[in-house]
Amino acid sequence: MVPKGFLFSTVEAAIKKPGRKDLGLIYSQVEATMAGVFTTNKVKAAPVKLDMKRIRSGKGQAIIVNSGNANACTGKKGMEDTLLMAKLVAHSLAIKPSRVYVSSTGVIGTPLPIERIKSKIPELAANLGKSSLEDVAQAIMTTDTFPKVVKKRVTINNQIGAITGMCKGAGMICPNMATMLCFVMTDIAVSQKTLNRIVHDAVKLSFNRLTIDGDMSTNDTVLVLANGILGNPEITEKSGSFAGFKKALGDILYELSKMIAQDGEGATKLIEITVRGAKSERDAEKAAFAVANSNLVKTAIYGNDANWGRIMAALGYSGADIREEKVGISFGKVKVVHKGLTTGKDREAGIVLKGRQVGIVIDLHIGKASAKVLTCDMTEEYIRVNADYRT
Amino acid sequence: MVPKGFLFSTVEAAIKKPGRKDLGLIYSQVEATMAGVFTTNKVKAAPVKLDMKRIRSGKGQAIIVNSGNANACTGKKGMEDTLLMAKLVAHSLAIKPSRVYVSSTGVIGTPLPIERIKSKIPELAANLGKSSLEDVAQAIMTTDTFPKVVKKRVTINNQIGAITGMCKGAGMICPNMATMLCFVMTDIAVSQKTLNRIVHDAVKLSFNRLTIDGDMSTNDTVLVLANGILGNPEITEKSGSFAGFKKALGDILYELSKMIAQDGEGATKLIEITVRGAKSERDAEKAAFAVANSNLVKTAIYGNDANWGRIMAALGYSGADIREEKVGISFGKVKVVHKGLTTGKDREAGIVLKGRQVGIVIDLHIGKASAKVLTCDMTEEYIRVNADYRT
Repeated sequence: MVPKGFLFSTVEAAIKKPGRKDLGLIYSQVEATMAGVFTTNKVKAAPVKLDMKRIRSGKGQAIIVNSGNANACTGKKGMEDTLLMAKLVAHSLAIKPSRVYVSSTGVIGTPLPIERIKSKIPELAANLGKSSLEDVAQAIMTTDTFPKVVKKRVTINNQIGAITGMCKGAGMICPNMATMLCFVMTDIAVSQKTLNRIVHDAVKLSFNRLTIDGDMSTNDTVLVLANGILGNPEITEKSGSFAGFKKALGDILYELSKMIAQDGEGATKLIEITVRGAKSERDAEKAAFAVANSNLVKTAIYGNDANWGRIMAALGYSGADIREEKVGISFGKVKVVHKGLTTGKDREAGIVLKGRQVGIVIDLHIGKASAKVLTCDMTEEYIRVNADYRT
Repeated sequence: MVPKGFLFSTVEAAIKKPGRKDLGLIYSQVEATMAGVFTTNKVKAAPVKLDMKRIRSGKGQAIIVNSGNANACTGKKGMEDTLLMAKLVAHSLAIKPSRVYVSSTGVIGTPLPIERIKSKIPELAANLGKSSLEDVAQAIMTTDTFPKVVKKRVTINNQIGAITGMCKGAGMICPNMATMLCFVMTDIAVSQKTLNRIVHDAVKLSFNRLTIDGDMSTNDTVLVLANGILGNPEITEKSGSFAGFKKALGDILYELSKMIAQDGEGATKLIEITVRGAKSERDAEKAAFAVANSNLVKTAIYGNDANWGRIMAALGYSGADIREEKVGISFGKVKVVHKGLTTGKDREAGIVLKGRQVGIVIDLHIGKASAKVLTCDMTEEYIRVNADYRT
C-alpha cells in the first residue's frame, strides 16, 4: 500500500550510462510535514547543504533525486546547479522553490551535466503518476544490485495509514550515515516536532548502526514526508497512536538498513553484531563497530573461518572498556569463547558461517548496556567493484 | 656489519607447517641496556605482558621468539608457557631468567605447542652463532613475503659502531603498532634513559605512522638492545654523538616500516601519505590515517584511479579541522585538486599511480603542522590471504 497523495516519476537524463533511469521525482499533492537527518562528514555535497537549510522550515512538497553524480566537491557551481534543479521543479509543479529538496548520489568531484538534467525536468514533472515508488528506488541505485523498498500499514484510530520507505546504498557506508539516500513517505498526520524526534531516534538505531566499509559519505540523506492526507488528528508524543507509529517507522529504517548490509558491495553475507554486557551504550557501540569495521574479521567470515582471535583483537583496540578474561563470543548458537578462552568449537562455528545471515553475539560481562551493528563480509568482489568504479 | 657481541640461532619446532624455521634466539654476550615499546591493544598476548614487566629493569640479554602462534587469548596457561620458555632459555645459557624476553606471532587463541618448543630450546641455545641475523628475520615471518633487515654504521668518537634492525609484519597492521615484531641490536653504549627516549620518539614517527588494514594486533613489540661492546663513553642527550645515533636508529625504524607497507598482504604498491598545512600535528595525523585506512582510497589506487573524491570524503570524516575550499591534493607531481576543486588532471594522475611507490600530498592550507603515514593498496589478494589464513 502506497501512502495517499504521493506521486512518482522517473526519466533518463544520461547522467549514468545510457539505458538506465537516473532522475527521479517524489511529489506530495499537499504540502507535507518533514524531518531530515544528514551526513556528519565535514565535506558535504551541495544538495545536502541546501536540504539542511530547507529542513528547518519543517515543510516540503517535492524531492528531486539523481544518481550517477554526487554533486560533491563541486564548489559554487555545484550549489548553483542544485538551486536550479529545485527552481525548475518548483516551476514545473507550480509550488514554492523552498519546498523542493534535492538529493544526488554517484561520483564525487565532477560537475553535474546540468543541461541534460534541465532539459528533462519538464518531462519529469509531466510524467508524475506514471512511475511507481519502486521505479524511483531503481533510478537512484548506483552499485546497488536491487531496489530497496519497505512498506507498512499502521492503524491510527480505526483508520489505516501507510508508511513507505525506499533507500539506496551499498558502499561508502559507515556510522553516521553512508552514501545512503532514504526517503520515507506517509499519509499519516504527525506534528513536526514529534516526527523530527522519531526520525532522529530511528536513524540512531538503524543507519547509524550500519557499516559496510568504514567510509562515510558526503551525501547521506534521510528525508521523511508526512502529508496528513489520512486526516487523523496530528500525532504527538501524547497520542495513543504515537508508539505504533514510532515502531513502524523505526522498523522500516531498520529493515532498509539490513537491505543495505545485505547488498554491501561484493557481500555474500549479512552480519549482525551484538555487543552485550558493556559498561555503557557508547562502549557497546564502539566495540561492535570495531568488530564490524575490521577487514580481518570480515574476510575471515567470508572464508567461513570462525577466527574469534581477530574479534578479540578488535575489541582490544576498540577503546571500549573490556576485560579479556570475561569475554564470551558466539557465532549463532555456537559459543566459541568462554571467559576469554577457546571452547574448541571453531569447526562447528565455521558451519554456522556458511549461512547467508550470521549473528555474532559478544558478551563483555562487565555491565548491562548493549548495541547491535549491521555489516557484511568482505570479498574479492568488493575490491573489483571499487578498483574499477570510475572506469 | 652486524653489531659485535650478538649471536643468533634458529630451529624448526613444528609450530608452523613442516620445513620452516619457527623458533629464533637473539643473544648478547654481555648484559645489554634495553628499551621497548608494546601494543596499546587492551588484549595483550602473554609474552607482551611479561616483556612489559621485564623492560622496567632496562636490562636484558636474550630474546626468544616464535612464529606460527601468537600465544594471545590463552589465559593462565599462556603465561605459564611464556615463563617456561624464558626459564629454559636462561637455564641453557646460564643467565638470569629475568634477562630473557619472549615474543610470539601467529594465530590467536590456540595454546602454544609447548612440549615441542621445550624440547628444542637446548638445541636452539647450542646452535648460537650458527645462524645469521637474516635467518632469525626469516624464522619470524608469518604472511611476510621477504625477511626485513636494515643495517647502519655510526661513527662514535672515531670508532665505528653498528646498529641493525629486523622486523616482521604484513597484516593486522595499524597505528600504535601492528602484528609487528621488531628487534634492534647495537654494540654502541647508550644510557638507558636516552635509549628509551630515542626509541619512543622513533616508534612514534615510524611504526605508529603505518597502517595496512586498520587492525591493531595483540602482540606488537619493539625491543632494542645496546650491549656497549664498542666501548664508547655511554651516549646521553648531551653527547656529541647523540644526534647521529638518534638519526641512525630513527632511519632504521622508518625503513623497516616502509618494508612492512611494501609487503602489506596482497599489496602491489607502497603509499606514502603526507598531510601538510594542518592546524596541529594531531589533526595532520588524523587526516592522514583516515585516508590511509580508507578501503575505498586503497582499492582505487590499486585500480590506478586517482579518485580524489574518496580522499576528500575521508578528510571530511577524519575529525581533523578542514575547509573544503582550501584543500589541495597531488599524486606525485600531478595536482588533481586545487582549492577543493578538480584540476581536470585525473588521467595524468592515473599514470603516476602505475608506479610501485605512490606519494600523495594533501595540503589543508589552514595551518603549519604536518604528518606522514605509510600504507599500501588493497587487492583481491588481501582478501584471499585473510579469508584462508587458518586453513
